[in-house]
Amino acid sequence: MRIQRVSPLVVRRLAVYLRILQRMNPEPDRFISSHELGARAGVTAAQVRKDLAFFGQFGKQGVGYHVWDLRKELCRILKADREIPVGIVGIGELGAALARYNLRQEKVQKGYPFRVVALFDNDTRKIGTAVEGLIVRSTSDLSGVVDELGIKIFMITVPVGSAQEVTDLCVKAGIKAIVNFAPAKVVAPEDVYIHSSDVTLDLQWLAYYLHD
Amino acid sequence: MRIQRVSPLVVRRLAVYLRILQRMNPEPDRFISSHELGARAGVTAAQVRKDLAFFGQFGKQGVGYHVWDLRKELCRILKADREIPVGIVGIGELGAALARYNLRQEKVQKGYPFRVVALFDNDTRKIGTAVEGLIVRSTSDLSGVVDELGIKIFMITVPVGSAQEVTDLCVKAGIKAIVNFAPAKVVAPEDVYIHSSDVTLDLQWLAYYLHD
Repeated sequence: MRIQRVSPLVVRRLAVYLRILQRMNPEPDRFISSHELGARAGVTAAQVRKDLAFFGQFGKQGVGYHVWDLRKELCRILKADREIPVGIVGIGELGAALARYNLRQEKVQKGYPFRVVALFDNDTRKIGTAVEGLIVRSTSDLSGVVDELGIKIFMITVPVGSAQEVTDLCVKAGIKAIVNFAPAKVVAPEDVYIHSSDVTLDLQWLAYYLHD
Repeated sequence: MRIQRVSPLVVRRLAVYLRILQRMNPEPDRFISSHELGARAGVTAAQVRKDLAFFGQFGKQGVGYHVWDLRKELCRILKADREIPVGIVGIGELGAALARYNLRQEKVQKGYPFRVVALFDNDTRKIGTAVEGLIVRSTSDLSGVVDELGIKIFMITVPVGSAQEVTDLCVKAGIKAIVNFAPAKVVAPEDVYIHSSDVTLDLQWLAYYLHD
């Protein structure tokens, strides 16, 4: 069963549940209750049950969820059971850090599904240089490289002024999922999912809660 | 008027509104309608009106919001009208990138309220080295430095295994707002606000939306 339009909030919680299950000991007959899973994820047991019910009947009354089976199901639902090629545009400080971080994750975390396969920048001084052995390519080659390497997700780490233009390039190349780190709102067609990761904005809203 | 317990979702949207207003030309008598502000923020006009109504009566029927006044009010509400000292724990790739990014923002963006004033790590090879002129200190000195420099917010960029311990240290030092970049859920008392910025999780939930 697969429902296309589940709220990103639900999907994001599924990713949290999956991570919790992945970090549990893989004992063959371990069960976990919605209470325990909820407590670890920071949500209520009812929320866990509701979120999972979107996708089928996984739990057993009074026993809970079979850890291994639920993990497999969530992997399938979230496509964590396959390798997903990722590109990064904007190889400044943050872009390079994210590239190194992800390339390292692939090595230390067995089954880490995201594989950074291409880096792009429009600065001729950066094009041709390497980050962890991966060559920085020209942003103008993006579309062809997406086809060639089957890139599915982009991380965008360009300055504010270029964020929309680079998003448009990615959309044109057929990309449906983007993490935008530029401190700017970008627009894209409805079937393209954009997550904004914006540290300046995060600091600003947290500041609201500071005591005077 | 100030209501203590407004949902973080509302507060986050306020930060988006503020940024939009800050990027508008500061013409003295410019007004903006809830429709226009909503369109730029990616929410409905009704949402804008509802969010702002939590904090008072800012708009004028048929005219909208006075850009300059609303901006001033939002600055006050979000505490963007004062300098906020920030610390970073974990000066690896990402921590150093965030430090440099923020230290640079302070220079390029007039009135940028967040000032990175201290870096911490527990690696003796890093302690004493500098990032953009800022010395890396020992994490064991955190509490004293928080007092000395009046640090209000921490960014945590340590490995998964240390995230909770470092969070506890920050909480003990009186910190009420944390951006956690470690791919781990951390717990803290109710009056401490933690935002998780977790690129691995973001990639994972976005993957749900990829076509097969």
